[in-house]
Amino acid sequence: MGVLIGPKGYENEPPRHPELKINAKEPFNAEPSPPALVESYITPVEMFYKRNHGPIPILTDPDSYRLEITGLAPMTQSLSLDEIRSLTKHNIVATLQCAGNRRTAMSEKRKVKGVGWGMAALGNAVWGGARLSDVLALAGIPSCTISTASGGKHVEFISVDQCPEEKGGPYRASIPLVQATNPQADVLLAYEMNGQELNRDHGYPLRVIVPGVIGARSVKWISSIDISAIECQGFFQQRDYKMFPPWVDWDNIVWPSRRPLMDFPVQSAICTPSEGSVVKDGSMVKISGYALSGGGRGIERVDVSVDGGQSWTEATRVQNGVSTSSNSLYISDIDENREKWAWVLWELNAKLTPPATIVAKAVDSSANVQPRTVEEVWNLRGVLNNSWHE
Amino acid sequence: MGVLIGPKGYENEPPRHPELKINAKEPFNAEPSPPALVESYITPVEMFYKRNHGPIPILTDPDSYRLEITGLAPMTQSLSLDEIRSLTKHNIVATLQCAGNRRTAMSEKRKVKGVGWGMAALGNAVWGGARLSDVLALAGIPSCTISTASGGKHVEFISVDQCPEEKGGPYRASIPLVQATNPQADVLLAYEMNGQELNRDHGYPLRVIVPGVIGARSVKWISSIDISAIECQGFFQQRDYKMFPPWVDWDNIVWPSRRPLMDFPVQSAICTPSEGSVVKDGSMVKISGYALSGGGRGIERVDVSVDGGQSWTEATRVQNGVSTSSNSLYISDIDENREKWAWVLWELNAKLTPPATIVAKAVDSSANVQPRTVEEVWNLRGVLNNSWHE
Ligand SMILES: [Mo]
Ligand SMILES: [Mo]
Repeated sequence: MGVLIGPKGYENEPPRHPELKINAKEPFNAEPSPPALVESYITPVEMFYKRNHGPIPILTDPDSYRLEITGLAPMTQSLSLDEIRSLTKHNIVATLQCAGNRRTAMSEKRKVKGVGWGMAALGNAVWGGARLSDVLALAGIPSCTISTASGGKHVEFISVDQCPEEKGGPYRASIPLVQATNPQADVLLAYEMNGQELNRDHGYPLRVIVPGVIGARSVKWISSIDISAIECQGFFQQRDYKMFPPWVDWDNIVWPSRRPLMDFPVQSAICTPSEGSVVKDGSMVKISGYALSGGGRGIERVDVSVDGGQSWTEATRVQNGVSTSSNSLYISDIDENREKWAWVLWELNAKLTPPATIVAKAVDSSANVQPRTVEEVWNLRGVLNNSWHE
Repeated sequence: MGVLIGPKGYENEPPRHPELKINAKEPFNAEPSPPALVESYITPVEMFYKRNHGPIPILTDPDSYRLEITGLAPMTQSLSLDEIRSLTKHNIVATLQCAGNRRTAMSEKRKVKGVGWGMAALGNAVWGGARLSDVLALAGIPSCTISTASGGKHVEFISVDQCPEEKGGPYRASIPLVQATNPQADVLLAYEMNGQELNRDHGYPLRVIVPGVIGARSVKWISSIDISAIECQGFFQQRDYKMFPPWVDWDNIVWPSRRPLMDFPVQSAICTPSEGSVVKDGSMVKISGYALSGGGRGIERVDVSVDGGQSWTEATRVQNGVSTSSNSLYISDIDENREKWAWVLWELNAKLTPPATIVAKAVDSSANVQPRTVEEVWNLRGVLNNSWHE
C-alpha cells in the first residue's frame, strides 16, 4: 500500500500505439484492427487490447512494493517483487479476451450496455511469472486444496485502481481456491509479457493471469490476495460479467440468480478480408481469423463458408508454429504442440463470387459448437457473443 | 486372466427388465422409455441403459481374480478384489451416456451407421469404488502426473469381452495419465452401483468410471490397466467414437485426422409428454426432461418453448434434491449441492395449444449452447447429437 497508487485523474496515462481503435478514452479502452490482430500468433504488447476501468496505477517505489496475502490462510504473507521473482518462473502462452468482445455486433440486434467492442478485444501473449500455487504454498496452502482448515474456498485479487463502478474503490475478482492451487490450471502472478517487463497498461508490476477464463478475472496491478469463504462480492463479480437469458431486461433483472462467468465458450471470427472489402469476381482471396475456447479446450475444427452458410470448407489451423489441415493427423490434448490456453489462427484460400457472404464457426475438443444467431445468446450486458461470424 | 471370461456365445446372458426397449439383441443394447428415465434422479440399476459389444463376461472365481497393472509404470501390480476394496471408498454421482444417444434422430436426417438409440441411452448412478489415482499410486505413480519417468502418458483399460469390431479381442480404451492421476477428476475403479455390488451387465466385478466423458471410456469387466506412451490403438478409440465434419463420408474418411471423443458437449432432451401424445387445447401440462454437460461443467439454464422456438421460458432444475428456478440464487460450481458429474432433471408446467411443438435447449456453466439443427452436427458415425430437442 502506498507505493502502488491508483490516481484519481488521467494526467499520467502511458503512451499508446496510434493505430489502436479507441472505444473509450477515460478509462482507456482500445483494440487493434482485425487484420492487424491476426498478423502474428503472439500479439505484440503495443497491439494487445487495452481494457481499463479507471486511470492507470503508478508504482512509485518498486523496492517497497509488497503483495499482501490475507484471510483464511494458515499464514499471512507480505512478499516483495524480488521474493516473487525468486520462485520458479513459468512462461505460459495464453489468450486473454474481454467478455465484451463482439459486443457492438450484439448491440446492433438489440441495444446492450457496455463499452462497444469490435472483434479484436483479445490477444495472445507469453506471460512470465510465478505460479499462484507456488505463492499460495508460502501462505501454507498446499496444491489442489478445495478448502483451507479455516474455510477458505475462494481467492480474491485486489487491485489499486479507482473504479467508478466501485465508487472509487479498486477492481476486485475471485476464482475458486481449487483452481488457484492447481499447478495444471497454470494461474500465474505475471511480471513479464512477451519476455519484457509488464508495462503499466497491462498491470505493472504484477498481475494475475487466469488462462481459459474471461479476462475480467485476470486482475492487473494487484496489491493483495485475500483467501475468503465466499466469492468476491464486488461489482465486477456480482453485478457484471454474468450472462442473463435474452428475456431478462433492466426492469426484471435478479443479479444473484446467475453465476459469475468463468470459462468462456467456443468462438471464432473472420479478420481478413475486412468487412465490405472489394474483391474481383472469381478471384482467390485469403480468408483468415482466430478461434479459441475456454477451460483449456482445444479447437477441433474451423469451418468456413463463402456462400452464406450453404456449403462449408475446413480451414487450416496454426498454433505454436504447427499447421493442421483437414486430413492431417490430429493433435492430442496432451501433445506439447498443443498450447492449451492459446488461440489458433486459421486461414483458407477461396474463390469469391461477389456479393459473397463469408461465415466462420468453430468446434472445440468437447464438441461444443457456436450458436448460429446472435439472438440465441443476446443478453443485456452484451457478453460472450460467440454466434457464427459473418 | 482365466477367471474372468468373455464367452463366445450368448447362452449365459443375465436377466433384463422387460420394459427396456431393445435396440440390438446380440450384443444386448437397450434403453428405458423417456418417461421412465426421468422418474428418478438416481436411475435404478435395472432401468439403466445397457451398452454392450459382445456377450457378457463371467467371473468364475472371485477370489482368484486379479487386476494387472503393466507397462510404463515404476512397478507392476497384481491386485485382488479385496486389495482394491481395502482402499478408501469413494461414492461419486455421475451420469454415463452413450455417445450414440439420439442417433436415430440424426439418422432420420441422413443415414448414419451404428446402433439406433432414442434419447434414453444415459443414466445417473452412485458409483462406489476406489479412486484410480489411489490404485495407480500402488504402481508408483503419484497424483497429477503428466508423464512417468519411462514416458507413460496414457492409461489403457482392457476388458475380457469378445468384440467383433476387435476381431474377437477385448474392448479397450484409454484416457490421459494426467486425468487418471488427478484425484479431482474422480476417475473410479467401481465395484458398486447405487449401493449394490455391480451386476454383470454393468461390469462385474470391476469397471472404470470416467465422469464427464462419453461412456465409451468407462470400460467394463476390466482385467488389466496398461500405462503406455501413446493412446489406445484399438478400434473404439481410433476407428469409432470420433466426430467427423458433416461433409466427410465413408468414401473420403481419414480416421487419424480426428481426435477420440472425450468430454461431451452440452445437451438436453424432453422426456414427457411423450412424442405425439394427445393434449386437450389449453390444458396445463408438465413438461420434463434432462440436461447435462461434459467435463464437470454444470447446467446454467434450460430454456423451453411451447411454440416451436418463438418464445422461451426457463425450466426449474433439480439436482441432488435442490430445486433451482429462474430467480433463485445461483449454485456455485464448488457448492456441495452441485454434483458436478451428474445431470439435472428439469420441469415446466405450461399451457399447451395443439398442435404445440415443444423445444428444449440448455446452456452450460461455460456458456456453451446447443446447436439449433441436427444438420450442423451431422456426422457419419451418428455421435453427439446435441441439437435442440423438439
Ligand atoms: Mo472485459
Ligand atoms: Mo457408446
